[in-house]
Order: sequence, then C-alpha cells, then structure tokens
Amino acid sequence: MTETMQRIALARRPMGAPVDDDFLLENIPMPTPAEGEVLVKVHYMSLDPYMRGRMDDAKSYANPVPLGGTMEGGGVGQIVASNAADYAVGDYVFGMLGWASHACLKAKELQKLNPKLAPITTALGVLGMPGFTGWYGLIELGRPKAGETLVVAAATGPVGSMVGQVAKARGLRTVGIAGGAKKCALAVDKFGFDVCLDHTKYADGKAMRAAIAEHCPKGVDIYFENVAGKIFKGVLPLMNVGGRIPLCGLISWYNAGALGANAGGEKDNLPKLWRTILVNRLSVNGFIISDHWDRYGDFLRDVGPMLAKGQIAYQEDITEGLENAPRAFMGLLTGENFGKQIVKVN
Amino acid sequence: MTETMQRIALARRPMGAPVDDDFLLENIPMPTPAEGEVLVKVHYMSLDPYMRGRMDDAKSYANPVPLGGTMEGGGVGQIVASNAADYAVGDYVFGMLGWASHACLKAKELQKLNPKLAPITTALGVLGMPGFTGWYGLIELGRPKAGETLVVAAATGPVGSMVGQVAKARGLRTVGIAGGAKKCALAVDKFGFDVCLDHTKYADGKAMRAAIAEHCPKGVDIYFENVAGKIFKGVLPLMNVGGRIPLCGLISWYNAGALGANAGGEKDNLPKLWRTILVNRLSVNGFIISDHWDRYGDFLRDVGPMLAKGQIAYQEDITEGLENAPRAFMGLLTGENFGKQIVKVN
Repeated sequence: MTETMQRIALARRPMGAPVDDDFLLENIPMPTPAEGEVLVKVHYMSLDPYMRGRMDDAKSYANPVPLGGTMEGGGVGQIVASNAADYAVGDYVFGMLGWASHACLKAKELQKLNPKLAPITTALGVLGMPGFTGWYGLIELGRPKAGETLVVAAATGPVGSMVGQVAKARGLRTVGIAGGAKKCALAVDKFGFDVCLDHTKYADGKAMRAAIAEHCPKGVDIYFENVAGKIFKGVLPLMNVGGRIPLCGLISWYNAGALGANAGGEKDNLPKLWRTILVNRLSVNGFIISDHWDRYGDFLRDVGPMLAKGQIAYQEDITEGLENAPRAFMGLLTGENFGKQIVKVN
Repeated sequence: MTETMQRIALARRPMGAPVDDDFLLENIPMPTPAEGEVLVKVHYMSLDPYMRGRMDDAKSYANPVPLGGTMEGGGVGQIVASNAADYAVGDYVFGMLGWASHACLKAKELQKLNPKLAPITTALGVLGMPGFTGWYGLIELGRPKAGETLVVAAATGPVGSMVGQVAKARGLRTVGIAGGAKKCALAVDKFGFDVCLDHTKYADGKAMRAAIAEHCPKGVDIYFENVAGKIFKGVLPLMNVGGRIPLCGLISWYNAGALGANAGGEKDNLPKLWRTILVNRLSVNGFIISDHWDRYGDFLRDVGPMLAKGQIAYQEDITEGLENAPRAFMGLLTGENFGKQIVKVN
C-alpha cells in the first residue's frame, strides 16, 4: 500500500467570495525527499487574507495558484525525513508548506524554529509574516511620533494588534476598529487600544467618519490601511496635514467584486481622493512585506524581547483539521475569526 | 486729485471655469507705506494654476481669496517709496504683490532681485516657485535614478519643463505630454524630452494609456503629477513596481467640477487605484511647495548655474496689461498659454 498525504487544491477560481466547491481535498502519494530536500509533517498552517488574491487570475505581486495546484500558505511542522545536511528528523521548521498534511521541499527554503523560545504557532502570527508586516509598515512608512493619533482596522488580527501595540508603546493614541463587541473588548483589554470602534454599527463611510472623528479630536496622523472599504472612506477626510498611510491590504474589497474588470462607479470619487492626498500632503505607500525580509532580524530584535516580557500580547484562533481550512478561510475573509487564524493539521 | 492704483478683485466665486464677470478691475486710492513697509510698482505678475483653487470657498492648504479682495499672486517690480531700512527706491523685488499695479507691504515679506544675474521675470517661473516645485518634487519625492523612465504633463510649462530637464540631466528617459503639435515640438526641441505626446489626440485614459505605453517600453518609474484627469488614468496602470508619484496639482480637475461636493461617480474606480498602489508598491506623496522654502537655496545652487550656462531652458508667455490678466488666466487653465504665463503690468 502506497503511503499518502492530504492536500487542498484550488478546484476553480472563485466568483466573489470563495465557496466550498472552489476547493478540493484530496489524497496524493507521499513524496520522497530528493537530494537537499526534506519531508515535513505539518502541525499548523496559517490562513491569511492575501491568499484570496492568489485564487484569482489577476496580475498581482505574486503568481496566482494554478488550477489544480495546492493552495499556498505558510506552516510550521517537524521534519520526518531528511535528505539534507544540517536538517535532522524532529527539527521544527517554518516554511511555505501549503494547505497540506505534508510538504516536501528544499531544506534551504525552511527556517528552523526553537520551540523553547516561543510556541511554534507564533511563527505564523505575532513573530511571523503578519506581525512583521505590522511592525515594518508602522515603523518605516508610518513614521510614528509620540502624541500622534493612529487608526488601524482589524485591530485584533495579527497585523492590527501588532500595529496598535507598537504604536502605543511609542506614545501614540491608538484607535482600533473591529467587528463586534467581543473583538472591541479584546482590542482594548488585551492589546491596549485607547478605544475600539465596532464597524458593524456603521453602515457606510459617512457614519464611520463621524464615529472616528469623535474619538480622534486631534485628527488622524497615521492610518494603517489593511481593510479599505468604508473604513478607508471614513478615515481619509480626517487625515491631518503630513499624514501617512502605509497600505498593505484591502480585505474588504477582495471579495466585493470591487476590483474586477467591470467594477467601479458606485459613488467613488477618485478626484476627491487625489485632491485630499495633495491638499493634506499625505504620503501613501503601498508595500508588500516579502520585499523587506532583510529587516526581519530587526523586527525580531525589537519585538522578540517585548513578547518574552509579556509586553506584546497575541491572540490565536485555531481550527482543527485540514479539511476545515476552506471554511476557516471563508470566515477569515468575513471577519469571523477571533485573532490570528491558524489550522491545526497534524 | 488723489493718486490711484489699479487692482483686480474677486467679484464672485466661479461656477466651474472662471468667466469675465468673476473678476472686477477697479481703481483704488494709492496706499502710503507705514513704518517697515514699502510701495512697489509691479512690472510683471505671475499667473499660476493654484490661483483657481483660491477662488473657491473650499478648505485647502491656503485660505480662499475673500469676495471683493485682491486676487493673490506673485509678482516682480521696483520699489517706488520706502519706509523700511535697507530697502531703497529703485530696488527690484519679488513678493506676493497680487493682481495689481502697485502693492504696499512689509519689506521683510519681499525678496530682493539682482537683474544682472537673470531677467527679473525668471523669479516668477524657472527660478521661482514653479521651477522650485518641479525640482523639489522630482528630486525629493521622485528619487530619480539613471535609466528610469519619467512621465510629466504640461511639459512646456514652468513645472513640467523643469522636471523634464532635471530628469534628463540625471540620465532618465523623459516622456512629456502637452496639448498640440507646437507645444510638443517645443518640449522636444527646447526642453530635450525624448518624446512628447499630444494629449488632444487621445479622448480618454484608455487611449492615453496606449500611447504612453508605446513610448515607455520599460514602464514608468516616476509620474510627476500636475494635471490628473485622463493622463493620470492613462499612466497609472503603467507604473512599475516601486514607482513614485509626486503629486503637486490636478489642473485638469480644477475646472471640471470633479472636485465639487456632488461630484464623483463617472467611471472612476477608487478600489482599483488603491489596489494599484498596493500591488505595485507605489509611493504617492502630496506636496505643497510652500512647506519647503528651506530648500530653496539648494534649488538655486543647483539650477542657477545650469541656467547661466544655458543647460536649463525656459519659455515665457507674456500678456500685456493688468486688464488682460483674467483672460490670460482663463487661457492658462485650458492650456492656451505657451510656456510660463506672465502678465506685464507696468
């Protein structure tokens, strides 16, 4: 009997929000590591909003997942077979393991983890790509100064919670936005936001604006953009002169069809956006964290000790079973997760 | 008989494009300089696109001109009466003299000019605010690198022609955009653009895009934004990863009603703009040159010698008579001027 592994493939490209039939759970033969490769048993895999983009065929900063290909994603696990020097069976590693029970890949594409320093799941969230994204965008592009006001949405997620905590530690007023009373309480109690607004209470950009304005008496200096949509529309008019908008995601528009070829129109006003950037001398910087791995060491040196001392909190939402990854991912895109979304695979 | 001076006041706020009746030419008593003040006879006044914004009541980076107030603007002239130490009758000066035959203001608000170093009109254009705007935005926010491609519109204007020449001197491919064959020829022959496209040939952003793409085989690294409209829409999809957009004006939208309270809609797609900034990691920086006068000395040290050696060309379009300023201004907003628009007043 051939040994098999499980994986989830992209069955078809979603129309708007992904549904079950866009994914296919299947068994494939267990691979054998070639020279320089290792076989990793996946313990935990990460679910992140960027994956929605990879499901589309549109030009982006990374290639789309091919139809029938394994869904991409980061994961942590243990080496179960090694054909590479310096990588032993039992070693804990992080890498782009995909939505799968096992992954066979070049050892040099992996990063070893020390489970004694921090739980291995933190490599997927607070100490991994999402935490690094928040830290880099805030520090490098947001240029925070004590006394300023910061707004960030998805405030309990791994990006937003990092942004809020680092900003708070540097003396900023931090205004979070999240969906629902439970998340808002978490944002304030665990992540130290000065206030957290429940966006489900506000129907559109105008209502959002009024609510944010009330809690930002000195305007907004940094809007860390990871959601777009009505929150973006609400914050933009409140930006102070010289404000900064690090832009790393637009999750609320990923599913909405707002980015499709025939989208547009609604009530958007591109000229007004452009004028706002001019009149308020805003700096808008799109960034993709994978361009900046050279700074990852700086991030770990800054945030690692804070985490160890309990000065940086994190929240994980762990779903059990690879087969439940598609539903967890759909939930992530609509904000049903409570903290960093992780799937326990093995 | 009381001595009088002439001025042009804002008679009413324009609805869209300004018309004659929005301006009022009138005689007022000649002022007498108080302690610390001088009376300046205006020789030349500048007309610039930003003045359209001052005619509206909307919040902007500067206060609007009040109804009945003298239209604002820079000018050069000679002191005819002085009540300030170190400022003598006959001195040439630059300052915010307004649309007027004479101006009475504090001497310390003026900048002395040496007419032997360069014609005094250059203080309004190539060596003044517009030239400085082009230089600062390109150098500081555009961060030009040899081998890159730059696109700038209003290529024969004082901002665009400076941007093109400085970029060319630094080894970039320079693609200008201007209205009409005559301006396009000037852009190439006098300002050294590698190519200049006539935007009147292209109906919309899509057509503009195709034309620009043909002449930017390696994409666009810097789009110096001073016009917006269809040129902006055409260039944006062609921006390379890491591209920069210094944003200092949107002249094509100033008159179009595109910025009014009830504007918007058309076929604009705000989500797509935002996504483009993200995916291509663009840096968009709104700037107002008046924030950066501390760098004016650097500009003069860099560009002054180039001008003296004939390495920087400039083109002026001089209208005779204060009474013709409104019409010249209307023409400026629709691109009828040929080079830097100046009015010879006295």
